[in-house]
Amino acid sequence: MPAEQVKFKREPLQMFCQQVFQKLGVSEEDARIVADVLVTADAMDIPSHGVIRTRRYVEGLKSGLMLPNAAIETLVDSPSSLVVNAHGAMGAPVSAKTMRSIIHKAKTNGSAFGCVRDSNHFGIAGYYARMALQEDMIGIAMTNTGTLGVPTFGRQTMYGTNPIAFAAPAGKKPPFVLDMSTTVVTRGKLELYERMGKELPPGWAVDKTGKSANHAGPVLKDMLAHLGGGILPLGGFGKEHSGHKGYGLAVMVDILSAVLCGAPFGKNVFDTPESYARVSHFFGAIKISCFRDPQEFRQDMDLMLQDLNDCPVAEGEDRVWFAGQPEFEQEEASRQQGIRVLQKTYNDLCQLGQEYAVQVPPTLT
Amino acid sequence: MPAEQVKFKREPLQMFCQQVFQKLGVSEEDARIVADVLVTADAMDIPSHGVIRTRRYVEGLKSGLMLPNAAIETLVDSPSSLVVNAHGAMGAPVSAKTMRSIIHKAKTNGSAFGCVRDSNHFGIAGYYARMALQEDMIGIAMTNTGTLGVPTFGRQTMYGTNPIAFAAPAGKKPPFVLDMSTTVVTRGKLELYERMGKELPPGWAVDKTGKSANHAGPVLKDMLAHLGGGILPLGGFGKEHSGHKGYGLAVMVDILSAVLCGAPFGKNVFDTPESYARVSHFFGAIKISCFRDPQEFRQDMDLMLQDLNDCPVAEGEDRVWFAGQPEFEQEEASRQQGIRVLQKTYNDLCQLGQEYAVQVPPTLT
Repeated sequence: MPAEQVKFKREPLQMFCQQVFQKLGVSEEDARIVADVLVTADAMDIPSHGVIRTRRYVEGLKSGLMLPNAAIETLVDSPSSLVVNAHGAMGAPVSAKTMRSIIHKAKTNGSAFGCVRDSNHFGIAGYYARMALQEDMIGIAMTNTGTLGVPTFGRQTMYGTNPIAFAAPAGKKPPFVLDMSTTVVTRGKLELYERMGKELPPGWAVDKTGKSANHAGPVLKDMLAHLGGGILPLGGFGKEHSGHKGYGLAVMVDILSAVLCGAPFGKNVFDTPESYARVSHFFGAIKISCFRDPQEFRQDMDLMLQDLNDCPVAEGEDRVWFAGQPEFEQEEASRQQGIRVLQKTYNDLCQLGQEYAVQVPPTLT
Repeated sequence: MPAEQVKFKREPLQMFCQQVFQKLGVSEEDARIVADVLVTADAMDIPSHGVIRTRRYVEGLKSGLMLPNAAIETLVDSPSSLVVNAHGAMGAPVSAKTMRSIIHKAKTNGSAFGCVRDSNHFGIAGYYARMALQEDMIGIAMTNTGTLGVPTFGRQTMYGTNPIAFAAPAGKKPPFVLDMSTTVVTRGKLELYERMGKELPPGWAVDKTGKSANHAGPVLKDMLAHLGGGILPLGGFGKEHSGHKGYGLAVMVDILSAVLCGAPFGKNVFDTPESYARVSHFFGAIKISCFRDPQEFRQDMDLMLQDLNDCPVAEGEDRVWFAGQPEFEQEEASRQQGIRVLQKTYNDLCQLGQEYAVQVPPTLT
């Protein structure tokens, strides 16, 4: 384990985050869900969406951007659909509850979809898509985000990193869980390259004139000041590598998450130095037994996923994975060996523990 | 108009193709649908999926790979789902009829999905997704294809170009119609580069060792002989530009199109020099009024799409488009000016006209 990391058992780490949120007025149930989403990300080695966010959520709750006890309003409730206004609540609890309702509806209706508007950061999209798996359903989750992405041939951001999550159950193999932003990279990656002083690979971002950018610093500065430039869609610059496809996927996510429920979309969703944008989510569930026997589906999934793992490997590479498999294996490892957290994230948790008089969880050695 | 093209009025061109298919035993209704799908592609300036395919379909019908009067078998029919075995029928008619049923089901059920297995090439996926628009629905269409795509870190093809189509209606603006293969490019593009003797951009394909390939010729040869190599997923080589995302999307399409209905998937779907693979499709419709007033949805779509068109343009570029807009405008232009077809495609149509005693449509001047 690298020196700059510490390890925790899952339960005390999750309980710590939960208690901090409870101190800020979040109900026990909601705080438990937020903490579970964050700790799940760390367990899967997705630290960008893990307990590092505790501080940001605390600031959100303190400033009133996130409301600990917002009254969730149901705008539409039909056998096949649900539209909810979160009125500024934390993203994870309203999302988990909406996905649960959607799954319940899909049990009788065969498929169901829902939107949550006026919400906040909901963590990893895959968390909600995965909820459908144990019910023998395919799960879908998407969200728009603050604007960061530049359309093909454009030079201003017009949409967010807009992730898509899609989960399908298998039998003996881990489930297939795709959880991907529709931009080529996320803002965190640009910030990392800025800190390292490393040149950007071509096709990640454009500068304020719309040309492929070499340096992350000016891109981040100009983008956040709305002067132009930003991150490119999956497929990169122009059309040579099909950047217009990633651009289309990002807009698709915005349509389903926001336009479908009348929420703000596109460039009207933006973070400022003082606040994070209110965002909107989309959830879906499709019942496999409406198409074929779920056990047979799971058996075929095993065959498909094994085929992918058995794909001859490119020279110099170790393995061919399928979507969700590295995270699944990491989650298993975390169960055995503890959850790894960056030392500086741990320091911040200790600080939060002091501020809110919550016992910091013991580290493992 | 370039010298190597000719132009036709839509109706006689479509009638010509229809009549050729009828001569091969296809019913009038089915032949009309196939011809409509092909001519629509040419009208939208997607010649790769246009009447150029007439010859290939004729060969398929002659060889028995495509059956002109296969008995379509309904395997599952529920309020939310439909699974159909096409038993080797032409792709377009069974696809259009399935999408029509799905739309009909979604009217009462709110959303519905369907699979067609043991089918053939269905033309442009967007054709079926667009069918939902006039019913105030979101339309979805996907298909697997013969294997051509190499997983991230692999060196053998394990999935097809697996397109995704997604259509959402607008008001005054053209609809948003995303229709994209999930590989970075399609086989036709590699064949074009081979003919031009042009080097491949890095990140389009890998050779049989799994390294990024410079020359299309060996890739095509080795890929079709199953020796290794093939086309990369959207996002390209390795993970630096997020090729694993395109790989994940391609597998998602295979799960929905094939695993969900028990059809062959992945590397088991392949073309040979003698025959084309039987493929499977996925269709879906989501009723907008289950979420909000469709007129309000369309108004917001207009605002979103106008915002995208108004995005400041990168230096050296002319316009920022949204998905489906170039094709929509081209279709409008074709209505005024005729449908453009390559001279050599026209020559082939003339040949077919002789073979099947069908009057070739007059060209426009």
